[in-house]
This record gives sequence, structure tokens and C-alpha cells, in this order.
Amino acid sequence: MAQQHLETPGAEGCAGDVVAAYLREQATEFLRSLRQHRESGGAASGTAAEETAEAARALRRSARRVSGTLHTFRPLLDPDWSDALRPELAWLSGMLAQEHEYAARLERLLAALHRLSGPYAVPLQPVGSSSAGAERVGTAHAPRNEKSASGQLTVGAAKAGALLERQLTLARTRAHSTALQALGSSRFHAVADSVALLASDVPLRPATADLKTLATAAQTRLTEAVTALPLHQAGHPYNAEALVQGLTADTAPPSQDAPWHHVRLLLRLHRYAQEVVDADAPEADAEAAAALDRHRDAAEAAAAAAHAARTPRIAPATAYALGVLHADQRHEVEAARFAFQRAWLKEAVRTP
Amino acid sequence: MAQQHLETPGAEGCAGDVVAAYLREQATEFLRSLRQHRESGGAASGTAAEETAEAARALRRSARRVSGTLHTFRPLLDPDWSDALRPELAWLSGMLAQEHEYAARLERLLAALHRLSGPYAVPLQPVGSSSAGAERVGTAHAPRNEKSASGQLTVGAAKAGALLERQLTLARTRAHSTALQALGSSRFHAVADSVALLASDVPLRPATADLKTLATAAQTRLTEAVTALPLHQAGHPYNAEALVQGLTADTAPPSQDAPWHHVRLLLRLHRYAQEVVDADAPEADAEAAAALDRHRDAAEAAAAAAHAARTPRIAPATAYALGVLHADQRHEVEAARFAFQRAWLKEAVRTP
Repeated sequence: MAQQHLETPGAEGCAGDVVAAYLREQATEFLRSLRQHRESGGAASGTAAEETAEAARALRRSARRVSGTLHTFRPLLDPDWSDALRPELAWLSGMLAQEHEYAARLERLLAALHRLSGPYAVPLQPVGSSSAGAERVGTAHAPRNEKSASGQLTVGAAKAGALLERQLTLARTRAHSTALQALGSSRFHAVADSVALLASDVPLRPATADLKTLATAAQTRLTEAVTALPLHQAGHPYNAEALVQGLTADTAPPSQDAPWHHVRLLLRLHRYAQEVVDADAPEADAEAAAALDRHRDAAEAAAAAAHAARTPRIAPATAYALGVLHADQRHEVEAARFAFQRAWLKEAVRTP
Repeated sequence: MAQQHLETPGAEGCAGDVVAAYLREQATEFLRSLRQHRESGGAASGTAAEETAEAARALRRSARRVSGTLHTFRPLLDPDWSDALRPELAWLSGMLAQEHEYAARLERLLAALHRLSGPYAVPLQPVGSSSAGAERVGTAHAPRNEKSASGQLTVGAAKAGALLERQLTLARTRAHSTALQALGSSRFHAVADSVALLASDVPLRPATADLKTLATAAQTRLTEAVTALPLHQAGHPYNAEALVQGLTADTAPPSQDAPWHHVRLLLRLHRYAQEVVDADAPEADAEAAAALDRHRDAAEAAAAAAHAARTPRIAPATAYALGVLHADQRHEVEAARFAFQRAWLKEAVRTP
């Protein structure tokens, strides 16, 4: 990828050219993915659906890179134009991500329930099967004994799985429709037009800063944000921090998660800035980035379990299973912080 | 403690004397504690209650040591007599432990709920306060808003705390009565008589094994049991093993906990054997032993939370809080295994 800008810029004047080449490349990729998405017809199932999902992933990937580059290298670009485009790209990639996120969240939660309740109670079900399906599986394979305590627990896990499946499949279907509608909207066409412009002609302004300085600033923002994290605590296994106040309110865990989510975004911006500066550089911090992805996924899965537990008129056994599941995912959050701390220190040793 | 048997036995003939001296010492301590327990009147509250609890603790402590010594050094003692006494001592110390264990379990669970639900929702309440107390505290300090999601969660935590308090306080009261009854029973008087005999005259038999060999055998049994533990897995933080099948049945976690509980007992037997051989030796494996105590306590607290969740007609929010609490304590179980693995390796390095 990106053969145009291998040379380190010799002078400040080149900075704009390097950024422009990167943006052109990403814009081209964006337009290619968009075409592919349209050709695969935005289908929701079958091979075409896989192609659509793949195209959406590529679309998001380039949208994030364009947006990140507009942000990090803002002093090199027409500010009005790039300030107008960035929120639109964020809207687009956020909206396109939702369907995939709901599907991944359901998969994560069902896998966790599966682990928590043994091989028979909640088999991973194909998306779209109903709660009646879960009951049927329970009847067919697992010893059903609703009178016994263990039977109660197993039924609770199965019902929790069915409830999550119902809620997240509905959310996913809605996200799919929303995305289809959005891709036909004038708002989307305006974004596509802006990106098309970018593919041919990047609106630069006279360079006021060089490439390296701007890339280094992105790195500094990342390093500072990491320094502000409770890394020392995260490095102590089983610190039980991720569950603190887990029963109080919806707002408590997000407030402790937010700085980690922020670092995840800064890590991404740093990576894109590195791609601009040197496309052939090996990806740094891949392990740390994966840990923060897992952190985000587990935090949202935990929130989904807590949300499901507030469904009116559920059985206590279902609520109990959702409580166990919520805590399990919050511990995944804690485990991901631990993994990030390790990866970050390792990276720091490797690149002194 | 134990000034009589500091000398290493010069010959096999001395082995019986050393064990006899240790048993006499522990028997004397047992009788002293028993006297103290009677004098403090077996009271359930106030200073006298503290003295009673302290006396019961000392009684259990010496009963465990006598029992462990009868087991480890069995070839030196009259087998019929010691085989008859051991189960009686186990009955006695188990029975005396129950009241304390229920109180400690409740304290552990309320502290965990407190951590999980912030400073206001479930304050640590004095034992004996009713569930109405928990509700009152909720009204006085915490923002009550049952309509809101966060209010629901907080109420769930408060109700879970009140339910646990009710159940464990009742169990504790029953254990107290059982212990008082037992201490007046003919069964207990027979144990006390046997221990009184021990304080004056230990029934030895001609030595067929030396002290060191028997103590080493106790150590070997411990080492072999530790080797059979999944220590490698336990050494990986956040392996999520302790919650596996946590939703299936009551029997699943105990079956994975059992080998750890067994090592806890072998560690104790090893410690008592070391005390017999050399009373002045510094206590080895204290950290490992503390980790396994924590393992046992957390496992039983988790089981108590799961048990409470099966109370008929509880609210879903209560069941949810109990699910979170159960998972929290199972993670404590996992954390304790991790701590044991670390402590054991450290000890192994120190004593090669």
C-alpha cells in the first residue's frame, strides 16, 4: 500500500504533498469500497451479505483514516473544509459500525454464557433463532429439572441467552435498516462527494508545520493520556477495580472506562499518523491496541447484560444469570486493562 | 510455646516422647480454653461474647493440632485410641467453627456488596439489624428513585444485602444454639475426657518409625497434592477458570475447588508436623496458607450468594445483584489461586 510517499520529506513544503498523497489513497479506497457495497446490494444474509459487510468494513477503515489524518495534520489543510468533513466521516463510520457491533456483542455474550453454563445449556445459536429455540435445545440436550437448583440455574442461563439474542438481534436489524437508509440519504451523498474531491484534489494550505512535528504531537497526546491512566493499579492482577460501583448506577463504570476508550482513539490516531509518515513502518502497539479493543467490547457487552436485566417481568433466575454475565464481562474489562499495561510496558522497553 | 521438646530426638525411642510432649501441651491448652469458654458463659453478645469467641477459637486451634498430630504421627500412638478420637475432634472443631464462619461470610459478602454498590447503598450493618434497616438506610442516604435504572440497581443491592443478612444471621444463630447444646452433650464430655487423659498420659506404642520420616511423609503428601493442582493455569492472571460452569449446577464449582481445599488441609497438617519437630522453626508457607483460607472463604461466600438467589419470590433486581456478587466472589477464588501459586513458587525458591 501507499507507494507514493515513501520518501521522507526533504523540506517543510513536502509535508502537504505527503499528507495529500495519503489522503488521496484513502479516498480512492473509500470510493472503491462504496462501489463494492452498492454492487453487493446491501444484503443482510448470504454471500452477498458477507461482501456487504466486508465492503462496509473497508469503508469504515478508510473513513477513519481520512478523518484521523484531517485531525492530526490539520495545520496543513484547509481548516474550514476539513472541520466540516470530520464530523460527517465520524457519523458515517459510527453508523456503519453499529450493525457489526451488535452482532459481535451478541456473539461475545453467548460465548461467555456458554462458558459459564457448560456445553449444553446455551449452545451458540444461529442469529435469528427465537427464544423458543433456546427452550427447545434445553429440552433436547440438557437434563431439565426445574424443581432442582441446578435446573433453575441452567434454565436461567438459557433464558438470559434467549433474551440477549432477542434484544441484540432487534438492535442489529434496526442498525441494518438505518445504515441502508443513511447510504441513500443526501447527507451521505454530500460526504461521498467530499471524499471524491479528496481523491483528486486535496485542499491544502501553505505549510505552517512539518510532518514530523505533527506526528510527534499525536504521539505526545497518546503518551500523556496513557500516563494519566491508573496503569500501576491495572498492573496488579485481580485488583477488582472494574466492578467497583458496578451495582450503583449506569454511569459509574463508563466514567472509569472513559479514559481507556480515549487512549484507544489516540492510539489509533497515532497509528494513522505513523502510516502517513512511513507507510512501511511495522505497526507499533498492535498488542496494546488489541487489548483496548477487547476493553471496549467487554465494557459494552457488560452494559448490554445489565440493560437486559432491567427488562420488566423477567424471572429471577434470568436476572441472576445476567448478573453473573455482567460481572464476568467487567472482569474481562479488568483483564484487558492488565493486558494493555503489559503490552505498553513491553513496547516501551522495545522502543526506548 | 512448647519448651519441652526443643531437642532433636537422638534416637527413634525419643520420637514418642516428643510427640507426647506436644500432645500434652495442646491438650492442656484445650482444657484451659474449655474452662475459659464455660466461664464466659457461652454468651452471644457483649464482652463476654468476645471472650467466648476467643475461647472457642483457642479450643478449635488446639483440637485441630491434636487431631493433626494423631494423624501424622499415627505409627507412634495407640491406633485404636487415636482412630476413635480423631473424628470426635473433627466434629467438635467443625461444630465450633460454624458460628464464626457464618458471621465471617456475612461480613465478607456485605463488604463486597458495599464495594460493588458505592458508599451509600449497602452500608455495613451491625449483625442483627433487620432488612427494614437496610431499607431505612436506603431512604436516608441514597437517592431513591425506583423508577430509574440506577435506583433499581441500588435497591437490588440493598435487598440482596438484607436477604443475605437474614439468611446468614439465622444460620449463625442456629449454629450458636447447636454449639451450646453440643458443649453440654455426653458426646462432648467423652471428647473432653479423652483430651484430659492426653494431658496427663499419652497412649504411645513402641516406636516403629522416627519423627523426621513421619514429618517428611506429611510434607510429601502436601507436595504431591500441590503438584496435582492446575498451578500453571492459576499462574496466568484472569484465566476466568473459577467461573467456568458457574451457571450450570451447584456441583460444578465445588468439584474444581476440592483439590485446593484438600491442599489447604495438607498444608495445615504439614505445619503442625513442623511444630512437633521444631517448635521454634519459623512458620513456613504462611502466605500460601492465607491464600487458601481466602480461597475457601470466597468459595463459600459465592455459594451463599447463589443459594440466596434461589429464595422463592425474590425480585429480579435482587437476583441480579446476587449474580454479580456470586461472580465477584468466584473471581476472588481465582485471585486466591493466583496468590497461592505465587506464594508457593516464592517459598520453593527460598527453601531449595
